[in-house]
Amino acid sequence: MKEYLENINKAFESKVRLGIMSVLLVQEKVDFNTLKETLQLTDGNLASHLRALEEAEYLRVEKQFVGRKPNTTYYPTYAGSKAFKNHLDALEQLILNNRQNDAFFL
Amino acid sequence: MKEYLENINKAFESKVRLGIMSVLLVQEKVDFNTLKETLQLTDGNLASHLRALEEAEYLRVEKQFVGRKPNTTYYPTYAGSKAFKNHLDALEQLILNNRQNDAFFL
Repeated sequence: MKEYLENINKAFESKVRLGIMSVLLVQEKVDFNTLKETLQLTDGNLASHLRALEEAEYLRVEKQFVGRKPNTTYYPTYAGSKAFKNHLDALEQLILNNRQNDAFFL
Repeated sequence: MKEYLENINKAFESKVRLGIMSVLLVQEKVDFNTLKETLQLTDGNLASHLRALEEAEYLRVEKQFVGRKPNTTYYPTYAGSKAFKNHLDALEQLILNNRQNDAFFL
């Protein structure tokens, strides 16, 4: 398999996870509801992808109470930032590889 | 959801499908065995992703016999090339969006 394809990280394959990591890296931290609104997802769908990224140690979770309301905040880990950056680099290589051959088909 | 995330195409989410479409667009046409060797996949795994892309009408299939041996060749369709290009454009936007914010974390 071509090197850039090997570097594509299965943990980030889904659009939802690309969205989560993007928001996390751009905003440094984000709470559940903001993420849900930004990505327009259901609670269950968002929660399952967050759990997968937490299990991969790509993000960490802080649970707090704001008054009586629970509030969950997500932070990217260093490993998560690094892995996501490598993933984006691999995608970039894929794009460049395809752009070189753009002319003949489109 | 951010526009570039909306334009990420679920049909191309997996690394295998990114690989298939990449090879198809670069080489214009490709047979099953070459694809299998290039992407280092099992027959079953490759076949199931090819079927999904065929059902989406992103590639077309030609079956022939070379002597007594069956030989299957895959071609990208115009719709497939267009859709893959849009997908790569969306990934590029994702990358650019993240690169703008690279400085503070890594």
